[in-house]
Amino acid sequence: MDAVTDKDLHAKRADARMNIAAILDSATRCLARDPDASLADIAREAGVGRVTLYGHFDSRSTLVAHVVDAAMAHSESELEKVDLTGDPVDAMQRLLVASWWLTHRHGALVQAAEKSLEPAQIHAAHEEPLTRMRALLQRGRLAGCFRQDMPLPWQVTMIQGILHGASAAVHRGDHTADEACELIATSVLAALTPPDAAG
Amino acid sequence: MDAVTDKDLHAKRADARMNIAAILDSATRCLARDPDASLADIAREAGVGRVTLYGHFDSRSTLVAHVVDAAMAHSESELEKVDLTGDPVDAMQRLLVASWWLTHRHGALVQAAEKSLEPAQIHAAHEEPLTRMRALLQRGRLAGCFRQDMPLPWQVTMIQGILHGASAAVHRGDHTADEACELIATSVLAALTPPDAAG
Repeated sequence: MDAVTDKDLHAKRADARMNIAAILDSATRCLARDPDASLADIAREAGVGRVTLYGHFDSRSTLVAHVVDAAMAHSESELEKVDLTGDPVDAMQRLLVASWWLTHRHGALVQAAEKSLEPAQIHAAHEEPLTRMRALLQRGRLAGCFRQDMPLPWQVTMIQGILHGASAAVHRGDHTADEACELIATSVLAALTPPDAAG
Repeated sequence: MDAVTDKDLHAKRADARMNIAAILDSATRCLARDPDASLADIAREAGVGRVTLYGHFDSRSTLVAHVVDAAMAHSESELEKVDLTGDPVDAMQRLLVASWWLTHRHGALVQAAEKSLEPAQIHAAHEEPLTRMRALLQRGRLAGCFRQDMPLPWQVTMIQGILHGASAAVHRGDHTADEACELIATSVLAALTPPDAAG
């Protein structure tokens, strides 16, 4: 056998990086289509062998965890772009629209995650985006735009419930994603408006 | 071996019925505590052998489907008792309270079902209780108590989303079940109230 040169090693590392990227990409697509997609499906779509896949990810749940991490990083970079300054009601509308499209895109992924990750891991994946939502709710409550007669954590629970319920309903075909987007904003803002400020 | 008498057969059938009831009972308790409870756990708590359990339920998902059926029958008999006549807002409040306690009780069971049943089966299990909700929403919309500028199916989606989100949040310890009950009613009614009728 020939001696391994620095150049060989470098090429091998580049191959490994490309394989990992291809596997994560394929897993994201496969799991978004079908939360039960198998490692064999994912390897096939990535164009790598199962042995290669197992060399990088030792189990299906490790791979799902990495896909969720990548989705969260993407969400974070999208949410960072949302302008949360100015009128809290307008800012909430913008944040809800951005949150909806991320929830919708990652909908089936959430199902895959729920089947293979622990509830604590799933909850942790939601924590980062929620910090932004909490800060805006707090600002809107202090400004008198959002009702203060219910706890802020409940308002977060309600918003998450509506987003996830809408995602499931759109996947079932009850509403289009565009309809859901508008209805989420209208419903959440109605539920947040102080009772004496509506109308 | 002795001949099997009618009395023996009768006793065997009575045993089988008791075993089935004990298994369903045990499965309901085990799955409500832990959606990943194994058939071995369920058999142990029911006081039957695994062979007996497999004799009645050929797989874990068959057993989960039966437990879900039993839970749905229970829900149906509870929801039947709710007075849906009179003022639609008061009737909705009563229906939400009853729906909340059923969602809360069956919360972990829903997770078990989501892990082992097809989405279509889970959706079917929700259909019956939803008929009542839809009829009340329709009556309230016609009476001008609930807003008509969003589709009725969306209002159902929103209510389900809030109920399920609340159930997950209570399981995580974010709210007590009593707090959630009151907050669900307040939030849903705020989101249903016509914009010009609030205040």
